[in-house]
Amino acid sequence: MSGQWGKKVRYSIFGESHGSGIGITIDGLPSGIKLDMDFINNEMLRRAPGRNEFSTQRKEGDKVQLLSGYFNGYTTGTPLCGVIFNEDQSSKDYSELKDVARPGHADLTGWVKYSGFNDYRGGGHFSGRLTAPLVFAGAIAKQLLCEKGIIIGSHILSVGDVFDRSFDGVNVKSELLEELLKKSFPVIDDEKGKEMKDVISNAKLEKDSVGGIIEAAILNLPMGLGEPFFDSIESRLAQLLFSVPGVKGVEFGKGFEITRLRGSEANDEPYMDKGRVKLRTNNNGGNNGGISNGMPIVFRAAMKPTPSIASTQSTINIATGENIDISITGRHDPLIGLRALPVIEACAAMCILEFI
Amino acid sequence: MSGQWGKKVRYSIFGESHGSGIGITIDGLPSGIKLDMDFINNEMLRRAPGRNEFSTQRKEGDKVQLLSGYFNGYTTGTPLCGVIFNEDQSSKDYSELKDVARPGHADLTGWVKYSGFNDYRGGGHFSGRLTAPLVFAGAIAKQLLCEKGIIIGSHILSVGDVFDRSFDGVNVKSELLEELLKKSFPVIDDEKGKEMKDVISNAKLEKDSVGGIIEAAILNLPMGLGEPFFDSIESRLAQLLFSVPGVKGVEFGKGFEITRLRGSEANDEPYMDKGRVKLRTNNNGGNNGGISNGMPIVFRAAMKPTPSIASTQSTINIATGENIDISITGRHDPLIGLRALPVIEACAAMCILEFI
Amino acid sequence: MSGQWGKKVRYSIFGESHGSGIGITIDGLPSGIKLDMDFINNEMLRRAPGRNEFSTQRKEGDKVQLLSGYFNGYTTGTPLCGVIFNEDQSSKDYSELKDVARPGHADLTGWVKYSGFNDYRGGGHFSGRLTAPLVFAGAIAKQLLCEKGIIIGSHILSVGDVFDRSFDGVNVKSELLEELLKKSFPVIDDEKGKEMKDVISNAKLEKDSVGGIIEAAILNLPMGLGEPFFDSIESRLAQLLFSVPGVKGVEFGKGFEITRLRGSEANDEPYMDKGRVKLRTNNNGGNNGGISNGMPIVFRAAMKPTPSIASTQSTINIATGENIDISITGRHDPLIGLRALPVIEACAAMCILEFI
Amino acid sequence: MSGQWGKKVRYSIFGESHGSGIGITIDGLPSGIKLDMDFINNEMLRRAPGRNEFSTQRKEGDKVQLLSGYFNGYTTGTPLCGVIFNEDQSSKDYSELKDVARPGHADLTGWVKYSGFNDYRGGGHFSGRLTAPLVFAGAIAKQLLCEKGIIIGSHILSVGDVFDRSFDGVNVKSELLEELLKKSFPVIDDEKGKEMKDVISNAKLEKDSVGGIIEAAILNLPMGLGEPFFDSIESRLAQLLFSVPGVKGVEFGKGFEITRLRGSEANDEPYMDKGRVKLRTNNNGGNNGGISNGMPIVFRAAMKPTPSIASTQSTINIATGENIDISITGRHDPLIGLRALPVIEACAAMCILEFI
Repeated sequence: MSGQWGKKVRYSIFGESHGSGIGITIDGLPSGIKLDMDFINNEMLRRAPGRNEFSTQRKEGDKVQLLSGYFNGYTTGTPLCGVIFNEDQSSKDYSELKDVARPGHADLTGWVKYSGFNDYRGGGHFSGRLTAPLVFAGAIAKQLLCEKGIIIGSHILSVGDVFDRSFDGVNVKSELLEELLKKSFPVIDDEKGKEMKDVISNAKLEKDSVGGIIEAAILNLPMGLGEPFFDSIESRLAQLLFSVPGVKGVEFGKGFEITRLRGSEANDEPYMDKGRVKLRTNNNGGNNGGISNGMPIVFRAAMKPTPSIASTQSTINIATGENIDISITGRHDPLIGLRALPVIEACAAMCILEFI
Repeated sequence: MSGQWGKKVRYSIFGESHGSGIGITIDGLPSGIKLDMDFINNEMLRRAPGRNEFSTQRKEGDKVQLLSGYFNGYTTGTPLCGVIFNEDQSSKDYSELKDVARPGHADLTGWVKYSGFNDYRGGGHFSGRLTAPLVFAGAIAKQLLCEKGIIIGSHILSVGDVFDRSFDGVNVKSELLEELLKKSFPVIDDEKGKEMKDVISNAKLEKDSVGGIIEAAILNLPMGLGEPFFDSIESRLAQLLFSVPGVKGVEFGKGFEITRLRGSEANDEPYMDKGRVKLRTNNNGGNNGGISNGMPIVFRAAMKPTPSIASTQSTINIATGENIDISITGRHDPLIGLRALPVIEACAAMCILEFI
Repeated sequence: MSGQWGKKVRYSIFGESHGSGIGITIDGLPSGIKLDMDFINNEMLRRAPGRNEFSTQRKEGDKVQLLSGYFNGYTTGTPLCGVIFNEDQSSKDYSELKDVARPGHADLTGWVKYSGFNDYRGGGHFSGRLTAPLVFAGAIAKQLLCEKGIIIGSHILSVGDVFDRSFDGVNVKSELLEELLKKSFPVIDDEKGKEMKDVISNAKLEKDSVGGIIEAAILNLPMGLGEPFFDSIESRLAQLLFSVPGVKGVEFGKGFEITRLRGSEANDEPYMDKGRVKLRTNNNGGNNGGISNGMPIVFRAAMKPTPSIASTQSTINIATGENIDISITGRHDPLIGLRALPVIEACAAMCILEFI
Repeated sequence: MSGQWGKKVRYSIFGESHGSGIGITIDGLPSGIKLDMDFINNEMLRRAPGRNEFSTQRKEGDKVQLLSGYFNGYTTGTPLCGVIFNEDQSSKDYSELKDVARPGHADLTGWVKYSGFNDYRGGGHFSGRLTAPLVFAGAIAKQLLCEKGIIIGSHILSVGDVFDRSFDGVNVKSELLEELLKKSFPVIDDEKGKEMKDVISNAKLEKDSVGGIIEAAILNLPMGLGEPFFDSIESRLAQLLFSVPGVKGVEFGKGFEITRLRGSEANDEPYMDKGRVKLRTNNNGGNNGGISNGMPIVFRAAMKPTPSIASTQSTINIATGENIDISITGRHDPLIGLRALPVIEACAAMCILEFI
C-alpha cells in the first residue's frame, strides 16, 4: 500500500520505470474544468529529461493519455486517470543490473521489502520517473489554484557550496516567479547560476554528481488554510516532499537557521497596514500552527546528489552476497535538482489544493 | 478535521490547553498488552513542566486516565482512550489575552480559521500542551517496539550556536541512548551542555528565548520497513514531526549537508560483513527510497525559540485591529527543545509502529 | 482498529459497556455552532433505557460531558470529545458471566478475536450501549442538517408479524415525522401499535424477545448528494447501519420487494412539475446511482430479537469448553427496535452530513 | 472522490462506460503472487455480456491489461493497475440520448451532480460496466483467499416471484458452490431455474425486465475476523455491495426474516463438537458483532430489474425540461442478476481479504 494520498482530492499512483505505463488516478476533481493541456504539457516538459545540457538525453516523451474523467474537453468530476505509456520499455537489457544494489538507490531495500519480486529495471517503482505522474497531477492543481490567484514558483537555491540569493520571505513577487519559470537554469542571480553550472560540469567530468537545495514559494494564500496537528500545511507538504526521491531535508521559513535566533528575533510581529494584517518578518514561512497567515509560504527541500554515477563504487550482488565493484553508465543528470523543480512545485500545489 | 493519524494503529487527538481535558484515542492496539504504567508516567514526566531550572514551574501533573480499551491490567484490543484532565483550568484569568495575537503563536491564524470561536486560553488546541497525549501514545508505541528490540533516543544537538557532537550514524550505541535518557540535560558532550545552559540562562535573563535542534535515532530496525511513495518512513515521520508545535525543519541522515557532497561521497556503499549486509556510511539516515536499510534511522528536528517571551513585542489586537505592545509574563521555558525530546521520540515510535 | 468513520467529519468512538466511560471524538465540525443541549439530551433520552414499559429500567443517565472542542457555548472547530461516564460501573458482579458465550451476542467472537482480553462485562465494546455516543454525534448532525431544512424521522414498521403502514415514499410529510417523534411508541397506525405491544408483552411474559423493522425517511435533500461507487449514499449509510448491534438487513426504497417488480413498474419516471423535476414513484428510495434524486430517502433496517432472554438456552463455557445451560436475568428490552430508532436516525444524520 | 476503498489493500477505480478505458489500481497486494490469468479471465467472462441467451450480445472482450505491479509473472508488491480498454467506444452515436434521463438510471442525478459535464454515454461512470474492474480485483482476492481454503460462491435465489432453494446456512458445501460455478444458469434447483428462465423470456418478449435476489456464501472463514463497529464484516461488505449498480437491499443470515422470529429461535446456540465450537443454527449469517463466528457467511443482495427496457416510458429531457417519451433500444439483459453473480462474489472476496 501507500501509493495513495489526499482526502478531498485523492491521488493513487502506479507504475514502474520500465513497465508498460506509469500513471495516477485523481479522484475528487470538480467537474467542468477545461484542462489547459498546453500548460500541462509544458510542466511535463520541465521535468522531462533532455531539456538542457545537464539533463539526461533520453527522449521519454512523457505524453499523458487521459483514460477517464475527461469528456468533450472538460473534467467530468469522476476519477481522472492519466497514463504515460513507456514507449521504449524493452529497448535495453537490464539483466546485468538485476542483482546489483546500486549505492544510494532503493535497489537493496526494495529487494528485501518485496522478497526479490520487485521490478529492478531502472529502480522500478522507486524510480524518479514516478514523479512524472506527480507533475501531471500538480499541473492540474496549479491550474485550479491559479484561478484563485495562488501562484507557486521555485528556484535552485544552491548547488554544492554555491548559493543563489534566497527569496525575500516578506515580499516574494509573482513577477520573479514567472521570470524564474522562463529560465532554463532557474536562479535569481544568474552569475551564481554560472558558478553552479561549473560545479555541475566539473562533477560530470569527474564522473560524479552534486546535490542542491530547491527553494519554493506559494503566494497569495488567504489566511486560515491548513488544519491543526496532523494536517497542518507543514505536515502535509512535508509528507509529499519526502515522497520525492532524493529529498533528505525540508524546512519552512528560516528553517534550521531559526534555531540560531532569539525568540525576539524569530517571532513575526503582526501589524495593521491599511486595514489588513501583515507580518513584519516571515521567519515562520507563512504559517503559524500549520495554518496559513497570509504571508508567502516559503520552504526548501534538500536534494541529494544523483546516486547514479559513472565512477567506480563498491557494492554487493544481492543474490550472491558477493562484494563487487560497479560503475553506472548511461545518461544520468548530475543534478537531480534541476528536473525536480516542477516536482517540488507539484507537491506544493497538491497540498494547497487540499485546503482550498 | 485533522486530529487523526495512522492506518494500522489510528490515533485521534482532542483537547485544548485550558479546557476540561486533553486526550487521545488509540484504535488498533493488539489485545493483551500489559501496559508499563511506570514507564508511561516517566515519559509523561520527561515532557512535563517543572522538571528542571529551564522548564516552567507549573505542576500540571499530566496523569493519564484510561477511559476504555484497558481491562484487568491488559489492553482489550478495542479503542484505548487516555485523558489528562486539566485540574486547574479555571485558576487564571485569560480574558486580557483574549484578543491579543501573540507573535509566533497561532492566535491570529486560529482566530481567522475558526472565525473567533477558538479557545484562546493558552493557545487552545494549538498549545504545546497537546503534545502530552502524543507522549502518552508514544510511550505505548515505545513499549511495543522495545519488545522487538527497537530503541529510540535523542539528544539536544544544538542550542543557538552551540553544538553537541552528532550521533555517529553508522554506529549509534543503545548504551548512549540509555545514558542520554538519564540525563536531565541530555547532550553527549556535557561541556557543551554547560555552554548551552549558559546560552539559555542568558536568554532568560534578557527576557528572551532560544531555539535548538534535536537529534534522534532509531536503532535495530529490520530492513524493508516503510512503503514507497507517500508512506515512506521519511514521509510519515516528517508529517508527525511537523505536527509538533515549534518544529520548522526536519532532515534525515546528512540532511541539508548532503547537498554539499558529491554523489561519490553521499552514496552509502553496501558490503557484506559476516553474512550480513551493512553500509559503510549512513548519509541517507537509515533508509533508501523511504524503506529502512538496516542502519540507524537518524534524523533532526529544528525547534524554533519559545515564542512566549517577557520582553516587549508589538502586535495587534485581533478584535479591534489596533497595533499594541505586549510582554508575555508567566513561566515559560526559554527552550522548547528540552521538553520536546520525548515528543520527538514519540513521533518516531508512532511512525515505526505503523510499519511493524 | 475500526472505531473511526467519516471523511469530512470524522468520528472516533471508544468505550466498553461497564468501563470508566464511553464516548466519541468528532473532528471536523464547523466552528461557531451553538449546540442545542436540550435537543441533544432529548435524543439521548430517546435511546436511554427506562423510557417506557418495554425498555429496561436501568437509569443510566447518559449525560454527555464535553471534554474539548466547545468553548463559551459554541463549537471551536477543533475536535469535540463527548464522554458518558459510567456511574455505576462497579455495582454488579459480572464474574459469573465471565466465560459464558451468550447466544446471539458477540461474547464468543470477541473472546476469540481478542484472545480473551476483551472486557466481557455486558458485552464490552460490542454492547448496544456504544450506540449512545452515536446518538450524541447524530444529534449534532441533525441540528446542522435541520438548519438546512433536512429532516430525519422513523417509525416501527413491524414487530414480529405485525406491520404498521409504510411511509408513502413519494410524499412523506415532515408533520408525520414530527408526530412520530412525540409518540412513546412511534407507529403511524396506533391500532397496529397496540397489536405490536401485545406481541412484545407476550414475548416478555414468555421470557422471550421479538424482532422488528425500523423504517426511516430523510426529507428535503437537494438533488446531487452522494458520490459514485464506494461512497454512494446507500453504501455509506449501509456501512453505518450494519455497525449498529442487531441490524441484519438494510434496504432502500422498495428494497427486496423491488425484485418482484418488472422494470416498467420499478423505474421511477421523472416529470416536470411547475419547473421542478419530480419522480412519479419512489421505488429507488430517493437516490439513483447512490446520488440523491430529490425524493425522500426511504430505508429500512431489520433488527433481530434482543438476544438476552430469560428463558433457558444452551451454550458453552468459553474457557472450559463445556456445554452449559443459561438463562439471562436482568432487565432487558424485549424489543431492540424501540430504543434503536434514534440510533438509526443518527446514522442517517451522520451519513448525510458527510455529503453536505 | 469516492472511487477508493480499502485499508490494507486499497482499490482505486476509474473509467466511464464508453471512455478510453476502465480500470482499477490495487495497492497493497503482497509481492510474489503468480496470478492465475486463466482464472481471472474466466471470472471476467462470467460477468461479460453475450454469455447466454439472456445476456446482451455485445462482445466487449473485457481483456485486462496490467500496466504496473506485475513483473515476470509475479506481483511486485507495488500498485497493480489493470485496465480494460474500450475497443469500440466510438462505434455508436449516443447524441440522441445526450439529454434524456433514462428512468431508473443515474442520468438525472449524475447530470445534476456534475453540472452536465458527466459522460452521458451509456451511463458513464455509473454504468454497470464499471463492475468489470471489480470482478478483476475480486478474482485476485479470490485467488489469495483460495490459498487459505476460503471459498466464495453464489446462486440466483429468485427471479421475480420464483424462488430457488436457499443455502442451508449451517452446512453449505463447497461442492455445491463449485457445481453452481459450472452452471450457465446457477440455481440449486434446476426446475426452478427453468421457471425463472420463463419469467425472464416473458419479460423480454414484453419489452420489459425482471429483478431477482442473489444469495452468496463464504466458507471456511476462521473465527475472529472483522472489526467492531464501522469495520464489521457486515458493514464493510454492505458498503461494497451497495456500490454495485442495481443493488437495493442487503441482508445477512435470516436477514429481514429474523424480525419474525423470537429471540429463542433467532439466537444461534454454540456447542462443542469434538473439541470445536459450532453453532446449532446460522440465523446470524456467520458473524456476531460483525466478527466471523466460524459458520458460513451467508448473505443476499436484492437486484432491481434492469432499468433499460424497450417499452415506452415517460421521462424528461434534462436540457430542455420537456416531458418526453422514450423506449430504450439496444441489447440489454432483462435480468441484471445473472451477470451480477461474479460481481457480488468479488465484493465478498475484497471484503474478506481486508480482514485476513
